[in-house]
Amino acid sequence: MAVGLEAAVGLKPVAGVRLGTAASGIRYPDRTDLALVELAAGSTCAATFTRNAFMAAPVILAKEHLATSATRFWLINSGNANAATGEPGLEDARSTCAMVADECGVEAGSVLPFSTGVIGERMPLDAFEHGIRVATADLSEHGWDEAAKAIMTTDTLPKGGSRSLEVGGKAVTMTGIVKGAGMIRPDMATMLAFVATDAAVAQNTLDTCLREAVEGSFNRVTIDGDTSTNDACVLAATGGSGAALTTAEDIAAFQCALNDLTLELAQGLVRDGEGASKFICVDVDGGHNIKECLAVAYTVAHSPLVKTALFASDPNWGRIVMAIGRAGVADLDVSRVNVFLGDVCIVRGGGRADTYTESAGQAEMDAEEITIRIELDRGTSRDCVWTSDLSHDYVTINAEYRT
Amino acid sequence: MAVGLEAAVGLKPVAGVRLGTAASGIRYPDRTDLALVELAAGSTCAATFTRNAFMAAPVILAKEHLATSATRFWLINSGNANAATGEPGLEDARSTCAMVADECGVEAGSVLPFSTGVIGERMPLDAFEHGIRVATADLSEHGWDEAAKAIMTTDTLPKGGSRSLEVGGKAVTMTGIVKGAGMIRPDMATMLAFVATDAAVAQNTLDTCLREAVEGSFNRVTIDGDTSTNDACVLAATGGSGAALTTAEDIAAFQCALNDLTLELAQGLVRDGEGASKFICVDVDGGHNIKECLAVAYTVAHSPLVKTALFASDPNWGRIVMAIGRAGVADLDVSRVNVFLGDVCIVRGGGRADTYTESAGQAEMDAEEITIRIELDRGTSRDCVWTSDLSHDYVTINAEYRT
Repeated sequence: MAVGLEAAVGLKPVAGVRLGTAASGIRYPDRTDLALVELAAGSTCAATFTRNAFMAAPVILAKEHLATSATRFWLINSGNANAATGEPGLEDARSTCAMVADECGVEAGSVLPFSTGVIGERMPLDAFEHGIRVATADLSEHGWDEAAKAIMTTDTLPKGGSRSLEVGGKAVTMTGIVKGAGMIRPDMATMLAFVATDAAVAQNTLDTCLREAVEGSFNRVTIDGDTSTNDACVLAATGGSGAALTTAEDIAAFQCALNDLTLELAQGLVRDGEGASKFICVDVDGGHNIKECLAVAYTVAHSPLVKTALFASDPNWGRIVMAIGRAGVADLDVSRVNVFLGDVCIVRGGGRADTYTESAGQAEMDAEEITIRIELDRGTSRDCVWTSDLSHDYVTINAEYRT
Repeated sequence: MAVGLEAAVGLKPVAGVRLGTAASGIRYPDRTDLALVELAAGSTCAATFTRNAFMAAPVILAKEHLATSATRFWLINSGNANAATGEPGLEDARSTCAMVADECGVEAGSVLPFSTGVIGERMPLDAFEHGIRVATADLSEHGWDEAAKAIMTTDTLPKGGSRSLEVGGKAVTMTGIVKGAGMIRPDMATMLAFVATDAAVAQNTLDTCLREAVEGSFNRVTIDGDTSTNDACVLAATGGSGAALTTAEDIAAFQCALNDLTLELAQGLVRDGEGASKFICVDVDGGHNIKECLAVAYTVAHSPLVKTALFASDPNWGRIVMAIGRAGVADLDVSRVNVFLGDVCIVRGGGRADTYTESAGQAEMDAEEITIRIELDRGTSRDCVWTSDLSHDYVTINAEYRT
């Protein structure tokens, strides 16, 4: 079950964005599995994609369409990732975009396809034909909640969020949805995340804002260290509110709201990570640079031994120092390293802190949300990542589910 | 349970080596937990150690002693790693060496200490005092089998092996023991492994032979990607057989036998890895260089999604290509990548092979021992690593056991 997270409901409509869903039968019976998102003409759209070399057919095509055409539709399906499907898979993705183009009277290049689900299987085009027809008829400004459900795979609940801000005296809304829940370590990209705003934002500003937001949110979470073939994060700005980002203050306010929303979405991925029973922040301070802070944070966050100790609520700090020690930080002076669980200092100067008691550590470990703070004491850089634990449910889910 | 591995029994004595064990009560009740190994005067000794920055006190001290004195004793305990214990831990390690020195009438510098078990706790010196006395009285050339048991932690069975060869017309014996079974990804070093031979081998030859053997064996296995704070592999040559390595042919024969024995020991670690139900070889061919072959092999071997699929005997090749794709190989042309399960080609040219059938893949996956062969088709380098799967038992063991 998700840690400290409720199902997204009441997501705010964004002027200029309509969403429709369908139960097209791509893989799952009795649930929606296809979402179509329409962006008003004149919208700008920015995206970041996975760096996995086996990038999926829809990723290849979405990049191509984004580079050549203005975007009017996002076509999203769960149940089939259309990855490692070669040239035939690319043709399938083209066909699904053409179906939307036919149904909605736009160019195929204005449709961005996104897929998530099983790798290596061909797409059932008949199901898409049917699903796209149903979803088109279903398009509505109030479709966000349903779209958040349709894109789920092993997620236990739909995830999304909204933000309101004011730009030039006008109310602006920003709403986003996201899906996980395994094969999650976004690498300079993200999982499937879709965000839209009704502000008018110039293309280069939108690109810059998205990159900054992703770097501090999706690029700081990991569930199992496995980077998906299908990661994508897209952001559209419709201008439907009548508000346009013109001043530096406008852009700063927009960036702030976007950072806040994407962080909530990224943390939602972790809270609903496969088998997650804990939500953990690994916060590394005192590094020479950000790179080594992240190396330590990710090594701790990926360590199966740390993750199983977290699952067991065992304040087993020896595993944390083991992971710090294998993170590859050059010339690390372990006698300067301190480690805290929440506010409790467990390691001081590389060894067990004199003040530490097992009961104090246990109390911190019993919590559902835990911060592991590591002080390297060799510089002024700091960074953090969020992760989940390694539970029996993670093994069960991934032994039974075909990614 | 260990995969395709039986408990080591009948390990061959090595002239010039005597071993004794004791149930000293360091941590475990009702079992031996201390082994003392005596090397005849004039023996040479070589060792490799962990590169974890949090190297344990006994590792620090063993390196110091090895650099300054001829080695006469190895003192090995399970149950307490004496890691992350700072200066007091180093003093404890010195005390245990002094105890052996007193009991056996040698210099403390001729004793190498090795510890494995819980990290971050002080050593119970009284237990050592007692244990060393008992183990000294127990010293015997026939003590290998018992020593293999005494050094176990979460290992399910004692692991070891022997080799016989002929040098200059004389029979030479080589015997080794090893312990795992988690926190295993030896990094330019090994887990606790102890090998001895009764050949006479010059110090620099012994160093070179050990480094070559470790590189192809312990440095090619991983269970959970977590590198221990206490890894060590030591090799002693007593000369007790009367045979001395003098010619290049002698050294080559010795190296061959040593490589063979250390590979058996290293694979034994994986076969008895925590929760292991499968023994997997990840073999990567056609790389530009060894480094990228190993990057791909380790990424596949560490992927929680690949490991859970192996546990489930699910021929889920999509997860294998995902892992290949995130291994960081620059400019990888995925359309040239082939993947085989055993002899069955599952991926050809980056996508599902035309000839592949689910039933053929399933038959390969149902086996206890599986080879995943990956062809990158961009060079002539090849390398492989061995690993185990990620099972419910791994989670159970590490949620319940305090490393």
